[in-house]
Amino acid sequence: MRRAIYPGTFDPLTLGHLDIVERARRTFDEVIVLLAVNTGKTPLFSLQQRLELVRASVAGLDGVRVDCHDGLLVEFAQRVQASAIVRGLRAISDFDYEFQMAIVNRKLAPQVETVFLMPSEEWSYLNSSIVRELWRFGGDYSRFVPEVVRSAMDQLKGSTR
Amino acid sequence: MRRAIYPGTFDPLTLGHLDIVERARRTFDEVIVLLAVNTGKTPLFSLQQRLELVRASVAGLDGVRVDCHDGLLVEFAQRVQASAIVRGLRAISDFDYEFQMAIVNRKLAPQVETVFLMPSEEWSYLNSSIVRELWRFGGDYSRFVPEVVRSAMDQLKGSTR
Amino acid sequence: MRRAIYPGTFDPLTLGHLDIVERARRTFDEVIVLLAVNTGKTPLFSLQQRLELVRASVAGLDGVRVDCHDGLLVEFAQRVQASAIVRGLRAISDFDYEFQMAIVNRKLAPQVETVFLMPSEEWSYLNSSIVRELWRFGGDYSRFVPEVVRSAMDQLKGSTR
Amino acid sequence: MRRAIYPGTFDPLTLGHLDIVERARRTFDEVIVLLAVNTGKTPLFSLQQRLELVRASVAGLDGVRVDCHDGLLVEFAQRVQASAIVRGLRAISDFDYEFQMAIVNRKLAPQVETVFLMPSEEWSYLNSSIVRELWRFGGDYSRFVPEVVRSAMDQLKGSTR
Amino acid sequence: MRRAIYPGTFDPLTLGHLDIVERARRTFDEVIVLLAVNTGKTPLFSLQQRLELVRASVAGLDGVRVDCHDGLLVEFAQRVQASAIVRGLRAISDFDYEFQMAIVNRKLAPQVETVFLMPSEEWSYLNSSIVRELWRFGGDYSRFVPEVVRSAMDQLKGSTR
Amino acid sequence: MRRAIYPGTFDPLTLGHLDIVERARRTFDEVIVLLAVNTGKTPLFSLQQRLELVRASVAGLDGVRVDCHDGLLVEFAQRVQASAIVRGLRAISDFDYEFQMAIVNRKLAPQVETVFLMPSEEWSYLNSSIVRELWRFGGDYSRFVPEVVRSAMDQLKGSTR
Repeated sequence: MRRAIYPGTFDPLTLGHLDIVERARRTFDEVIVLLAVNTGKTPLFSLQQRLELVRASVAGLDGVRVDCHDGLLVEFAQRVQASAIVRGLRAISDFDYEFQMAIVNRKLAPQVETVFLMPSEEWSYLNSSIVRELWRFGGDYSRFVPEVVRSAMDQLKGSTR
Repeated sequence: MRRAIYPGTFDPLTLGHLDIVERARRTFDEVIVLLAVNTGKTPLFSLQQRLELVRASVAGLDGVRVDCHDGLLVEFAQRVQASAIVRGLRAISDFDYEFQMAIVNRKLAPQVETVFLMPSEEWSYLNSSIVRELWRFGGDYSRFVPEVVRSAMDQLKGSTR
Repeated sequence: MRRAIYPGTFDPLTLGHLDIVERARRTFDEVIVLLAVNTGKTPLFSLQQRLELVRASVAGLDGVRVDCHDGLLVEFAQRVQASAIVRGLRAISDFDYEFQMAIVNRKLAPQVETVFLMPSEEWSYLNSSIVRELWRFGGDYSRFVPEVVRSAMDQLKGSTR
Repeated sequence: MRRAIYPGTFDPLTLGHLDIVERARRTFDEVIVLLAVNTGKTPLFSLQQRLELVRASVAGLDGVRVDCHDGLLVEFAQRVQASAIVRGLRAISDFDYEFQMAIVNRKLAPQVETVFLMPSEEWSYLNSSIVRELWRFGGDYSRFVPEVVRSAMDQLKGSTR
Repeated sequence: MRRAIYPGTFDPLTLGHLDIVERARRTFDEVIVLLAVNTGKTPLFSLQQRLELVRASVAGLDGVRVDCHDGLLVEFAQRVQASAIVRGLRAISDFDYEFQMAIVNRKLAPQVETVFLMPSEEWSYLNSSIVRELWRFGGDYSRFVPEVVRSAMDQLKGSTR
Repeated sequence: MRRAIYPGTFDPLTLGHLDIVERARRTFDEVIVLLAVNTGKTPLFSLQQRLELVRASVAGLDGVRVDCHDGLLVEFAQRVQASAIVRGLRAISDFDYEFQMAIVNRKLAPQVETVFLMPSEEWSYLNSSIVRELWRFGGDYSRFVPEVVRSAMDQLKGSTR
């Protein structure tokens, strides 16, 4: 059985992320969406909220589960015997960081392959920070996120931005 | 009449920005230089100061006016019935962010076109952060900014950097 | 009146080109789609055929006309008093050549501005050479070109590839 | 069973190609190295020779076979029921062409996913054209190709370059 | 005598940095590794520690010395009569910032040339921030830094990350 | 004494090339401008003409000489005991090919360092092919080439383009 990890912060999960999860699932027998505990800055949603939102978003997808991890990605990969780390590669994207991490991860765990998939061109421009920015300025983010995420973001509106 | 918006933080306005304003004005009947209220970090100049410096810098340009806005860019564009958002596109530039914003803005307001102009190669390397860095280290920024901006930056020198 | 030129080989015209023509027309009062006489290699369609196909494709667009030119682009621009050269700028694109030509054209004719527009992300990957390749290998190019171009390409099928 | 295609011209196969074949094999149950019949220019080796050299080079790899195809890649993929097209993605690489082909192939056959793998950084600079150039100028290409390819290239030396 | 400056934060010095120092030394008669006093954020190592670690790392290299500077780089270059600023240029790298700084430095001091060298492809992915990240998550950074730096990082482990 | 090679086709030499020659000369004691015998396509000027034009263009520069070579660049470098290969690196440029060649050359001759210099931003867009295109279409190339090259190109005008 081939197992892959799809790591990220998912703050929040977008339809572009979901597209990659589905593509990864067609390529691997099991996909673990792995949330980083530490986001490096104050997240929009807490780890617990992100876990719930991602779980709700992938609920209908067979062979996909959700977990979180605090530490080196490759350690988690080795622990769950994943053979691959999946990354979305957009034409509009930060190649540098992706390549750097892929090479470093390979040095640390040569048996874990980083596999790049390309999201639908419909989502080639999309990332979580664009969605957060739309939310912050009162823009319409509903077409960029799953329904369950949209609903959770709407409820955040009472809080200070 | 064709109206365009040239949005930015302009902290401070450089000669590269001014070059784009003039090119935009030759392409559109009216250009609104639109200052972001929120710069995301502590700016060198306050919004009020930036408004005054940009207004003084474009004073001689017919059909150019200056405004500020807090919120979604496309909302402002729609309110003033602008048909275009103008962006400078340098060979040395952050294409990713530019393209992302252009696509998202198009999704939110399809009738507002993002138009990319190329500054003179004389300014292809220039942005506000380089100018702020020169100021911080006591370098000579006079050739990179309009006279009125240079003068205001000189007076900042008494403050702590 | 603001007139723009949209130059290219258009061998053949794609739906991505047509998208740029429409965006250019919303930004300028008149758009001239300008076909290069010399394509540098054996074209799929002769100049005469390309002229007819482009004319048929833009027939419904008010304020758009089609012409051809053999020589320096800026000479044509100056002759017809165009104020702008329009270029499509795709995330997936040859920036280098675009920027080089834009700077050289500016040196030769400073009053003609090169203006970059972004096609719909639906066409961000599309160019004529992809369409020609699909035709050559018997693939389905119908979703990438206007109906009139598809029909002309179908009829080419009798010829040797 | 998950089957992947690794398409290319392989004129000649390099150690960078071989590295990707091995990585692909660890990710998929079967890998078909698929040689393009048509190379677009006069190749160093004929199709027959390239087939033999690639076959000899992957002889020791279980679950890897070699084939050739003249036509659309996705047609072959569908015929052999491959679920993926594998491409090597080097930091130094032609992203544009890769992304274009990946999107077009997806349009033509949505169920075939393009999967990008990263070769060892040892081969990040290597492609067939560099190897051909070394051969042409009498340089030492032995460290860049499998032994069987090196030997075949040595024997080419009698021919005119 | 030709003197070059190799500026950086070196927080910490990596084997990629050391590779560039050695290449620079083969190109110039003297190389000054110049540490920025101000790192812009909280560094892993203090200025004093970084000076000691870099000095220890280059101890065996003839014609290499280490210094630090707070202010404009070109001022230091002029003071020590250096004719060149050396920068490592990785395929995976921030070209934009490098080019910007090179042009601005040239404007400020035309007689000081910025010279780009390419590290071994073995280090093409490596920078200090990757090393700090490995340290933070308890990964193995020993293969990426000189022995003396590894030892100092190990001792940091008692502190809060 | 430090000797560097500046290799190229120089068909024709541009003011951008000349700018790099002068910068190289300030960094090295001797610079050999090395013309490739084989240009890969029909050149505008014959090898003999190119040699004469480059020699005339650098006549006033002390410590610069001109030669030609047919074969591997590093062989020539080793024969004349050059320690460096100089390449111009423009923001608008073919990084890929430059990096590939630099790594391959390093593999073949580790003691010869490839050194990248940046031309004046005035020439950041310029290459020989742009100049040839201007000549072909009757444009004004006089501001892009040395006087002696301009004069030779003018005389080519009688020939068929």
